[in-house]
Amino acid sequence: MTEGTHAAETGSVRSGFSGLAEVISRARARETRAVARLISLVEHDSPALREVAAALTGTGGQAHVVGLTGSPGVGKSTTTSALTAVLRSAGRSVGILAVDPSSPFTGGALLGDRIRMSEHATDPGVFIRSLASRGQLGGLSAAVPQALRVLDAAGFDVILIETVGVGQAELEIASLADTTLVVLAPGMGDGIQAVKAGILEIADIFVVNKADRDGAANVSRDLRHMQSYGPGGGWVAPIVKTVASSGDGIGDLLEQIDGHMAHLRSSGSLAARRQRRAAQEIESIALASVRQRFADANGPAALDAAAHDVVAGTSDPYQAADRLLDSL
Amino acid sequence: MTEGTHAAETGSVRSGFSGLAEVISRARARETRAVARLISLVEHDSPALREVAAALTGTGGQAHVVGLTGSPGVGKSTTTSALTAVLRSAGRSVGILAVDPSSPFTGGALLGDRIRMSEHATDPGVFIRSLASRGQLGGLSAAVPQALRVLDAAGFDVILIETVGVGQAELEIASLADTTLVVLAPGMGDGIQAVKAGILEIADIFVVNKADRDGAANVSRDLRHMQSYGPGGGWVAPIVKTVASSGDGIGDLLEQIDGHMAHLRSSGSLAARRQRRAAQEIESIALASVRQRFADANGPAALDAAAHDVVAGTSDPYQAADRLLDSL
Repeated sequence: MTEGTHAAETGSVRSGFSGLAEVISRARARETRAVARLISLVEHDSPALREVAAALTGTGGQAHVVGLTGSPGVGKSTTTSALTAVLRSAGRSVGILAVDPSSPFTGGALLGDRIRMSEHATDPGVFIRSLASRGQLGGLSAAVPQALRVLDAAGFDVILIETVGVGQAELEIASLADTTLVVLAPGMGDGIQAVKAGILEIADIFVVNKADRDGAANVSRDLRHMQSYGPGGGWVAPIVKTVASSGDGIGDLLEQIDGHMAHLRSSGSLAARRQRRAAQEIESIALASVRQRFADANGPAALDAAAHDVVAGTSDPYQAADRLLDSL
Repeated sequence: MTEGTHAAETGSVRSGFSGLAEVISRARARETRAVARLISLVEHDSPALREVAAALTGTGGQAHVVGLTGSPGVGKSTTTSALTAVLRSAGRSVGILAVDPSSPFTGGALLGDRIRMSEHATDPGVFIRSLASRGQLGGLSAAVPQALRVLDAAGFDVILIETVGVGQAELEIASLADTTLVVLAPGMGDGIQAVKAGILEIADIFVVNKADRDGAANVSRDLRHMQSYGPGGGWVAPIVKTVASSGDGIGDLLEQIDGHMAHLRSSGSLAARRQRRAAQEIESIALASVRQRFADANGPAALDAAAHDVVAGTSDPYQAADRLLDSL
């Protein structure tokens, strides 16, 4: 995104509102247009980002943040949509962030578009937003935690974050979410062993979707077998079979999600998870700020030049890091 | 590791040598004991770490850094060992870093121990070291790039970094290595589709190990099918079938590894990869330094306290990040 586009975007985000205070106050009343504009502000890292963050201080903390991840084709979007339907039937509001890993290799997957076109598009109790992942190596965009804060402040009961399962993004989802769902499906050669270590670690709940297909029992059995090697103690991720396209098993899934939150609260893990999440967020903001200030003080290519010196052997990385910090 | 152990370790590392200059000079002559001690210094983040980094400036850059990753059980250690044998037959020296992901969930896998007990243990042209991964979320330890610099400065022709395929560590291996091998094996339910996006992105070469077993042809075929969806152009990762336990195919593998390096050089990608690696290293050192200086200035629990304020809603993460930077 160029500077020009950026400025225009920020301008249009404010238009129609008398000022940021009004946008925030309307977003907190869950007015869709205001929520959307606040997320645009944080997504584009606009000058108003800090104002938004400051204005949201003391809000939120009530939403249950649920991450969904899994390989392409397992039915994450359908699961998200079906889960949203069950949540709405129960009178709970739902914010959805679809994080498209616009990887330098594969391009964005446009998860959100599929959800947006679904039955929930016109429901005021559902807010759907697609965010491009601009992070390095397929990681989540820095905008994701801020967008999460906006939805939390807007009072959504449940926030679903959906991403395609690329290594780092999966792990980052787990660090952002209170509850992480890993979605699998049979019959796509989706052998669970291939991602064994990663999956075992981040899943709070396993969803075996397309459970009406051949091989679903094998996937469940493999997962249980895998879990038998786990560390034991504490929470053992339940395995829920679903057919998201028909809604089968989605009620059970919601029960397990609520059960996990109850476990987090009773064990004290919820506070610990959220504190770790905040510490990571603070550090990543600090690093982005260091990087920006260094570029401001030394020109946009200064880090490249420093890296060049290290590769060329005229500097070591510690000296280069010191110069980076000294220039602040 | 406690402070006491740390100091003792640093002390013992220097013992037997008249000083750091001697350790470095002997390490550059590839004296095993000196190389091992330099790596201990950087692994334990000792006060000498910066001295070591400064003293190594202008050395190295000649080694071909090859990363090996893959799920547990595919035969990474056996492949590493077989590849080492072929390299040694060709008169090339080999440094091996086995990175054990001592994840908070699964504990370390002690990859290095298996290699260390192998035929190469007494060969002075082979150096083997196991490093614990102390990074967050299963990521590689910050010691890995420094240990790499030590082995590079010591003049090893090829440096093999082996790690278990946990999402983030895989990606970090790819960012450290010139050439990344993704090792798969048939017959373990090791469906490649499950890690499709991640694997497609990081593999410079696919190794289908245990190729004498049923299903090896399927794994290769699935990989080729997957590649047909890739972005095309540039390097297309070759698929090499091996039986590492007997050495079958390992000669082919080495040819492909050398071929990849030739491609990196001729395309100019080598310089770009190494520059990106250096930039990441500088930034991660800077962040560690910010974190440390913040702890020094505000007490070890200051970041936790800041995170607590954000969770409690008495501060926003940007204010907290500013305070973190202001205290430098």
